[in-house]
Amino acid sequence: MKSPMPQSIKHDYKARILKLQAFMKSNNLDAFIVSTQDSIYYLSGASYMPVERPFFIVVHPEGVPQLVVPQLEYDHMRKVEGFGEIGSYFEYPSIEGENWYDKLNSMLGGQAVVAIEPELSVSKAALLKVKETVVSPFITEMRRIKTPDEIAAIRNAAAWTDKGMHLVHHGLYRGQSVIETTMPAKTLQTGVISSGEFDYFNCSFITAGWAAPKSAQPHSLPDMHMRMGSGPIVLMSYNRVNGYAAEVERTVFLGDPTTEERRLYDIVMQARAIAYGMVKPGVRCSDIDVATQEFFKSKGHGDRVIHRTGHGIGLGNHEQPWLSSGSQDVLAENMVISIEPALYFPEIGGFRHSDTVLVTKDGYERITQYPDDLESLIVHEKRLFLQLKGRIIRKAIHY
Amino acid sequence: MKSPMPQSIKHDYKARILKLQAFMKSNNLDAFIVSTQDSIYYLSGASYMPVERPFFIVVHPEGVPQLVVPQLEYDHMRKVEGFGEIGSYFEYPSIEGENWYDKLNSMLGGQAVVAIEPELSVSKAALLKVKETVVSPFITEMRRIKTPDEIAAIRNAAAWTDKGMHLVHHGLYRGQSVIETTMPAKTLQTGVISSGEFDYFNCSFITAGWAAPKSAQPHSLPDMHMRMGSGPIVLMSYNRVNGYAAEVERTVFLGDPTTEERRLYDIVMQARAIAYGMVKPGVRCSDIDVATQEFFKSKGHGDRVIHRTGHGIGLGNHEQPWLSSGSQDVLAENMVISIEPALYFPEIGGFRHSDTVLVTKDGYERITQYPDDLESLIVHEKRLFLQLKGRIIRKAIHY
Repeated sequence: MKSPMPQSIKHDYKARILKLQAFMKSNNLDAFIVSTQDSIYYLSGASYMPVERPFFIVVHPEGVPQLVVPQLEYDHMRKVEGFGEIGSYFEYPSIEGENWYDKLNSMLGGQAVVAIEPELSVSKAALLKVKETVVSPFITEMRRIKTPDEIAAIRNAAAWTDKGMHLVHHGLYRGQSVIETTMPAKTLQTGVISSGEFDYFNCSFITAGWAAPKSAQPHSLPDMHMRMGSGPIVLMSYNRVNGYAAEVERTVFLGDPTTEERRLYDIVMQARAIAYGMVKPGVRCSDIDVATQEFFKSKGHGDRVIHRTGHGIGLGNHEQPWLSSGSQDVLAENMVISIEPALYFPEIGGFRHSDTVLVTKDGYERITQYPDDLESLIVHEKRLFLQLKGRIIRKAIHY
Repeated sequence: MKSPMPQSIKHDYKARILKLQAFMKSNNLDAFIVSTQDSIYYLSGASYMPVERPFFIVVHPEGVPQLVVPQLEYDHMRKVEGFGEIGSYFEYPSIEGENWYDKLNSMLGGQAVVAIEPELSVSKAALLKVKETVVSPFITEMRRIKTPDEIAAIRNAAAWTDKGMHLVHHGLYRGQSVIETTMPAKTLQTGVISSGEFDYFNCSFITAGWAAPKSAQPHSLPDMHMRMGSGPIVLMSYNRVNGYAAEVERTVFLGDPTTEERRLYDIVMQARAIAYGMVKPGVRCSDIDVATQEFFKSKGHGDRVIHRTGHGIGLGNHEQPWLSSGSQDVLAENMVISIEPALYFPEIGGFRHSDTVLVTKDGYERITQYPDDLESLIVHEKRLFLQLKGRIIRKAIHY
């Protein structure tokens, strides 16, 4: 499977650093310590999971940023462009005076006013010996507005994500086990590998299908032996391709849904239409969530709402802005969000579609494009060949 | 591929909670807020990744713990055994007064002295309205000593991990691309699925081979197109099977190594022997690391040491105790560690073996059992069939 579009997407890390520096100047910050995996990747393209050996980008109001890295990372980090001094520490833990915080503190100086990310742990923050630390969510906020290269990367992930949905949807048959619906993810991975560009550390591929009525619990992993049958099946495709994510979800049926299932499906489609109708710059995210909730209440199903209308998508599957009633976020051009108002009935199952959506100047563009009308999503044929093949697979893997 | 041993391992979460409660009583703590993914799993078996929607176990000095969970998790968390009240909040963010911290603070009360984990973020800690917060690493410390059920789970992971090494080592041929060495991981995953027990959220499978001289940079991901040839190749197999991890690494050669390569290989084998000879309860982890470093120095290669001698293994691939010169840890019976002193030469490559090792009453037991003698590790045959098969695979995936 080939990539549906070119993947050689170059990111302008320097522009991102300059934006952060402008913020620092207007807030009189002497340094910004970047510590989270996503922010490090966002500002440098360096993929590193800061677990017990911390990794920091130290940004100053002027000039090139510095790095503090474990010695293990030193050789290859030298090749990351646009950095000045690379301070390395030997190990975690190192002997006294040679730990990461010794190195970092010596770079910062005791009189510095230093911004830290909200996610920095209390134990790490306590080791900073500076004049003042200021908790700043600026990088996460900056990440809400996507640059053209980021949108291209999300479009690429979305095309793979639509392919994943196609594979799960077209592979579905009565009697299929949940575990089988997770397998198309491997096909996507092989496809991205074959495309010639594959960032091993920054790809993840997930496909799945939740059978009814378990589809009423979107976060509860069903028994992998559970079989697909009647009722609303929620299919999912979440993929992060070379750093950027996309998601698509569809509610599908094996054979004709009941009248009640059609009614509930239609209500969710109407809620989606309400949400989509509101998506444009300047709209408060909370208003969109309140509108879909009010609509569900008007239909007598207010108690069957168990999550918000949507969330931002970018480096992570979930990030700002939050389309939630308690959100302070306001939509702006080039934000990328999910739209997924949904209803869940413990005895019947879940009804949810989700798409990856770009906020445009005047409204929105759906980036994932998998069909969302009920007739396209009902599986009418019996798929006898898939049933036979599935029986062999299930026997082989004991599912 | 079948599981090499029964996987139905039951964990005694109640005993773990009781141990934590005893600690709380002797430290006059009114509550312990458990917030990290690993600690939540360790104390409850509930697998949850606490990202933007936080999840907490609130342990009191007496009685059953409580949970604070997003509403999305409420239905299935009700089924986790041994918990009392489950406080759920609607979403992140929720409207004022209904957020996770409102729920948590109302459960704790303003006069509580509350322990938090060192990993809790500064922004979350700032939202706690209690009398006092105490940063406590107790749960991580508790996790250093493995219970019999945990050791059984690590043995199981180790058996899969040895199988992974076998697959990579026996699939190796001159001209193989790095990407091909990552593929046996999928075979392991299919094997665990076929075993009938597969905890989707708590399994991960990684196999890889770093060709020389890139094997000198253990944390630098090589170009996936890079080919296996002369020089020391470092093969890796890291797997987490239903919650518990194991690792094995081997330095192998395609055809006979040079005299110099044999000499360096032998030095690393001697350093391993020194480390193994010291492993027993009561020994300071720093002493082991210092001993291997001193030995490498005595051979004139002190500057080619770029990481510590080892680390603990359990729920995570890396956890306490740290076999590092700056470590305060002391070995005790039933700790599980890696032993992996190593040398790295930019022009030649890396020399490293790693094993998963149980500290016993009198010494140690190597849990991963893959052969580690040079003759067993040299690939003498040409493997013409694999070369042909590899050519077809590489053509198909463009590697």
